[in-house]
Amino acid sequence: MRWIGQPVPRLDAPAKVTGRAIYAGDVTLPGMLHGRLLRSPVAHARIAGIDTSRAAALPGVKAVITGRDTPGIRYGNWRLMPQTQDELALQIDKVRFIGDEVAAVAAIDADTAAEALELIRVDYEPLPAVFDVESALAEGAPLIHDEGSLTSNVSLDRKIDYGDLEAAFARAAYVREDRFELPSVSHAYLEPCACVAEADLEGRLTLTTSTQTPYMVQCLLASALGMRENDVRVVKPTVGGGFGGKMELRSWEVCAAILARRTGRPVKFVLSREEELAFGRRRHAMTIRSRLAMDRGGTILGKDLEVWLDGGAYNSMGPTATFLCGNFGAMLYRHPAYRYRGYHVYTNKAPAGAMRGFGAPQALFVTESQMSMAAEELGLDPIELRLKNAMVAGDEIPGVAKISTSGLAECLRKVAEATSFERKRATTAAGRGIGIACSSFITGGVFNWFDTPHEFSAAEVRAHDDGTVHLLTMASDIGQGSDTVLRQILAEELGVSIDRIRLTAADTALCPKADLGTWGSRVTLMAGNAILAAARQVKDELAGVVSARFDLNVIHEIVFADDRVFARARPERGVSFGEAVAMAMRARRGGAVIGRGAYTPRGKGLVTPTFSFAAQVVELEVDRETGVVRVEKITTAHDSGTVINPLGVEGQLHGSIHMALGYALCEELVSREGRTLNPTLLDYKIAAAEDMPAGESHTVEIHDPEGPFGAKEAGEGLVSPTAPAVADAIHHATGFRSCSLPITPEKILFALEKKGEE
Amino acid sequence: MRWIGQPVPRLDAPAKVTGRAIYAGDVTLPGMLHGRLLRSPVAHARIAGIDTSRAAALPGVKAVITGRDTPGIRYGNWRLMPQTQDELALQIDKVRFIGDEVAAVAAIDADTAAEALELIRVDYEPLPAVFDVESALAEGAPLIHDEGSLTSNVSLDRKIDYGDLEAAFARAAYVREDRFELPSVSHAYLEPCACVAEADLEGRLTLTTSTQTPYMVQCLLASALGMRENDVRVVKPTVGGGFGGKMELRSWEVCAAILARRTGRPVKFVLSREEELAFGRRRHAMTIRSRLAMDRGGTILGKDLEVWLDGGAYNSMGPTATFLCGNFGAMLYRHPAYRYRGYHVYTNKAPAGAMRGFGAPQALFVTESQMSMAAEELGLDPIELRLKNAMVAGDEIPGVAKISTSGLAECLRKVAEATSFERKRATTAAGRGIGIACSSFITGGVFNWFDTPHEFSAAEVRAHDDGTVHLLTMASDIGQGSDTVLRQILAEELGVSIDRIRLTAADTALCPKADLGTWGSRVTLMAGNAILAAARQVKDELAGVVSARFDLNVIHEIVFADDRVFARARPERGVSFGEAVAMAMRARRGGAVIGRGAYTPRGKGLVTPTFSFAAQVVELEVDRETGVVRVEKITTAHDSGTVINPLGVEGQLHGSIHMALGYALCEELVSREGRTLNPTLLDYKIAAAEDMPAGESHTVEIHDPEGPFGAKEAGEGLVSPTAPAVADAIHHATGFRSCSLPITPEKILFALEKKGEE
Repeated sequence: MRWIGQPVPRLDAPAKVTGRAIYAGDVTLPGMLHGRLLRSPVAHARIAGIDTSRAAALPGVKAVITGRDTPGIRYGNWRLMPQTQDELALQIDKVRFIGDEVAAVAAIDADTAAEALELIRVDYEPLPAVFDVESALAEGAPLIHDEGSLTSNVSLDRKIDYGDLEAAFARAAYVREDRFELPSVSHAYLEPCACVAEADLEGRLTLTTSTQTPYMVQCLLASALGMRENDVRVVKPTVGGGFGGKMELRSWEVCAAILARRTGRPVKFVLSREEELAFGRRRHAMTIRSRLAMDRGGTILGKDLEVWLDGGAYNSMGPTATFLCGNFGAMLYRHPAYRYRGYHVYTNKAPAGAMRGFGAPQALFVTESQMSMAAEELGLDPIELRLKNAMVAGDEIPGVAKISTSGLAECLRKVAEATSFERKRATTAAGRGIGIACSSFITGGVFNWFDTPHEFSAAEVRAHDDGTVHLLTMASDIGQGSDTVLRQILAEELGVSIDRIRLTAADTALCPKADLGTWGSRVTLMAGNAILAAARQVKDELAGVVSARFDLNVIHEIVFADDRVFARARPERGVSFGEAVAMAMRARRGGAVIGRGAYTPRGKGLVTPTFSFAAQVVELEVDRETGVVRVEKITTAHDSGTVINPLGVEGQLHGSIHMALGYALCEELVSREGRTLNPTLLDYKIAAAEDMPAGESHTVEIHDPEGPFGAKEAGEGLVSPTAPAVADAIHHATGFRSCSLPITPEKILFALEKKGEE
Repeated sequence: MRWIGQPVPRLDAPAKVTGRAIYAGDVTLPGMLHGRLLRSPVAHARIAGIDTSRAAALPGVKAVITGRDTPGIRYGNWRLMPQTQDELALQIDKVRFIGDEVAAVAAIDADTAAEALELIRVDYEPLPAVFDVESALAEGAPLIHDEGSLTSNVSLDRKIDYGDLEAAFARAAYVREDRFELPSVSHAYLEPCACVAEADLEGRLTLTTSTQTPYMVQCLLASALGMRENDVRVVKPTVGGGFGGKMELRSWEVCAAILARRTGRPVKFVLSREEELAFGRRRHAMTIRSRLAMDRGGTILGKDLEVWLDGGAYNSMGPTATFLCGNFGAMLYRHPAYRYRGYHVYTNKAPAGAMRGFGAPQALFVTESQMSMAAEELGLDPIELRLKNAMVAGDEIPGVAKISTSGLAECLRKVAEATSFERKRATTAAGRGIGIACSSFITGGVFNWFDTPHEFSAAEVRAHDDGTVHLLTMASDIGQGSDTVLRQILAEELGVSIDRIRLTAADTALCPKADLGTWGSRVTLMAGNAILAAARQVKDELAGVVSARFDLNVIHEIVFADDRVFARARPERGVSFGEAVAMAMRARRGGAVIGRGAYTPRGKGLVTPTFSFAAQVVELEVDRETGVVRVEKITTAHDSGTVINPLGVEGQLHGSIHMALGYALCEELVSREGRTLNPTLLDYKIAAAEDMPAGESHTVEIHDPEGPFGAKEAGEGLVSPTAPAVADAIHHATGFRSCSLPITPEKILFALEKKGEE
């Protein structure tokens, strides 16, 4: 193929490296004001009163708003269950975490806005607060959300009961139960959130915002302001990473809109890194209890999983994480019986939301840790044990979906062979370890929690007589490179060179409705399929006019390649792509040649159309004096279906490893009494470039019938195996098996000391 | 009707009066540079050399270009006849008028750019020059365009021979021949031309420019730069008037694009008023010889018309003016025999182009002056004479078109009655005069001189389930109010309120292809018809789902009104417009409800689908001491078909009178040896608000079958009757019949003196 599978450099890279790309924070408009948010300094309190008069009187301040100036309509991504919509842009009656938004200011510059915040007086009446799941669930705990019908701090639960779990455990030769603690970590995207709102004089709003999901922001902003959906236009500019942290309507977007309407001027908000780390979305901290039943040979008979998600003060994307954890808990391996209980629990902390992996890093840390522990106790090879249970095409995700293709076994064999795993695992050099873990992930979500009436993705392809093509889509490139991948897909299908494709994306007023955005590794498959459908309409039309022009017998195959349209058997009977379009326009008496396509997964279960798989081996060294872990090499084999852009997949792997190393070894948002103690990148440590280990990757290309050109996902699955593989390797190196993350030097030294004492 | 015929205030007015509207000159982008053009100080010369080195070395100058830095591809609007495409953005070998562009500079600010211009040294080798039509046509005149195959300075001619002219004159009882001189005048639009070009790193260009014809600019800029058409995006921002002066690709647009590519930064050009008046497009000065044959009763038997257009140094829109003058020469009245010779002549002056009326103000000044003169000589009432010859539906424009509807006779009767014309005309109070003239105009042009492969206008209507509608069109509102009119048309057709319609217009990358732009009074009819076609697709779909939902018998009429869709006979069987869309989306399984429509006049002759008509009476006073004319009242009756927006038509009438008063009495671009002597608004006098006379207008609404809701045009026709009516009234007041414009106090005094001497 000419474009699929080729290492096409990212088409947005030149603009980014030369500084010409425009992020939301770069947008400057005539008369623009700067906004800032006033946040609660207390974790849980009634708001007795707010006095904004001194702030409003400050020269340069153009508007000050509180919750009373908003319509007070609660919003949230889970529109399918309105009772989960628990957010307000500015709190009216009470605050629920340190950082909860209570007022917003628009001023002529950011300094004046900041000064104005200090002049706002809020009277808080403190309430008892809870900062962990256990306290939140305790008898007599304060009810964080007392505005609805909830009677406890469990905002939502999910139950799965599949197969005969009791029988499975009854006949099991081997049962183990473990408890795991997974921390809260930050996306730490390069670009803090920013937005610019403009209000026109007909009552319409335009919001340019750093988001993964412009369509969702459009819908929710309209409902939060009581507006018609299409009177709101949301534009995604260049975005510097999201990882799940930018897929919701957020307070500053609502405030910018209200302030723009009030002042008649554009209003910009740019968050600080401190706001992001202290108050921003994060990955759910989870407490997980897992009970596993196997037969003597290590075949899984059943699993009983309980998960408590520390949701923070609002639901955010917690319901999806609660839902997906249930699926991920039974992934990778066949589970004939499965019980899942997931509880999303409110606490008086910053809300957790979606983050790369969306429940999988936690659930698979548990699965893979237990697999390695079981292998050890049963005296089995950890890879053999996994191979024995590995999912293959046709296997069922308990009750909700079937695996269409799986390269898991091949991935396992590949990394085992590439790393001489068996030999190295048998070696026990002091402080050196090798560990393994696998992962799997969804390729887009099926369950329609957003309750959209639109197709999940849509595309329009306009073919022009100059041989160029214009692709319009709501798909949102947030840095993952999808704009390049989508153009590759279209170039391949139409047989035109990629430089002939203009892309207009992620503008809710202009691009075809709709696309649910960038999350759940959905873009390549869903937008790709929509694009293929649109391209095929164009091809049908052009094939028709070329056949007519050259009197081609009906059985001729018409080929689109090299910017030409021609009969495969008679290549001279053909014209350039542009000439074919010109002919079609003549046939339409001047009408444009346009294809429209859409994709919605139907008949693919309730989780995802298809799953990716991967296996990863980590080799590391533990300094037994300091407890410091140095990861030396990571070898990965992944089944992402057909790889559309090897450079892109390689980039996703590097990024995943980078992020997962932090999850495994050093990252954690630490808080005390609801106050984040490490809200800067000096204190919140992420891996640096020099921390990156040597890497080796192998592609197990399996054509997936549901994916465009057979593609599956590569953006999120690869973030899951590293932490359990690191934990496994540390155990191999030290004998210490950590059931919590991050595995800090302190934990290692403590364990080694304890072991030494034993 | 709910929206058609209603005085809807212009929807763009609030943004304009509050200063929030963004014109090209308001666009500011990060890193933007400012461009300036170096123009020739000589009227005709070879360019022996250009030294830009000192300019390039000036601090703050980022690029300097000359013709050698352009591809040197000639361009022009008449793509159908490539030999007429005679323009270059920057001249390479020779300059042809004072103001011809020879170099361009981009610098960090406009002052630095201006300073750099002074450092460019151009060596000119002067050539003999010609400054009027007579010299240009004289034996041995220098050939202004020697680069092609022309052997004289006539760049193009048009001949019409219709009926037996010789026989007509042979049997005529009354023949008269007159010679007229019409001046060159400026559009004097409020907003001088401006543009901003941006070049991206993939080789694409975006040009935001003050234009009437973004699609034409796109096509021509692409060809001038040797680019693919759709790698150029042209965006029309708010435009402050055009009147024909902004419908071509212009030098600064090409230079901005080249400079943006060279520097990697946005480049803005803003013309000064002096540049506009001295070098800008203008209405053609014409010399016209007209010979008219009538029978004893005043019935026209034939007409022999010769027109020499002073084209200036380039063709610009001269070919169209030459073409249309031939049609306008035989308008208003039946001409059984007609001969036309039109000559477009190059001279070493700034090129003339299109201007409101496009040949009609000149041709109808001749027609109407001769009608009044003939009436006087034949002893006939001037209105009766006109009524006798007035075109009615079915009459033929010699050889090219038929009149579909005509309210001319009714207009004549209406103004005669409203002004007591007969009585006042019979009165000869010293210095007081009443005069009459009529006009007619095209409603869009048919002849495809731009050679577009697209429909002449296209529209896309996206219906949303929130009850809003998004209209996308390339139609270009340049201040005439078409954005409001088009929304009225759509609101009426879909039965939704106008505030529910979002409009996206005039962006070549996003709006449906194509629309030829704003000229020839084409927008309401052509874009309006395209919109109706698109709206009807939406209606068909919604009527279907509503019928299905309510089990409506096939004969039911489904009505779209009051934001509802329902059965006329059973109004309760219906839903809101938004609900109907939601139902249609369900029926499409989430697909969007989109209508696409287009309009191209077919089977409507080669001129226009339909003609407007008007009659106007001017009452004035001439100060016989000073020669100053004070126009006291203007009474107009017009047949613009169905009036869609009475406020808009009234505004067009006011604007037309304002512009035509200047044409009649004071405006003229005066030049000597090719140098414009009055290049400021202090010297070039346009009517001021206090010069505006009292007005009265009458609408003769005749439903035209070709127009949307029966509409014809109102933007240009009304600019023609005022000058001949003023001339006629001056004649009535003083006995002086002027066959040239403007009728200055000097001319009047000179004539009165001469008359006194007789």
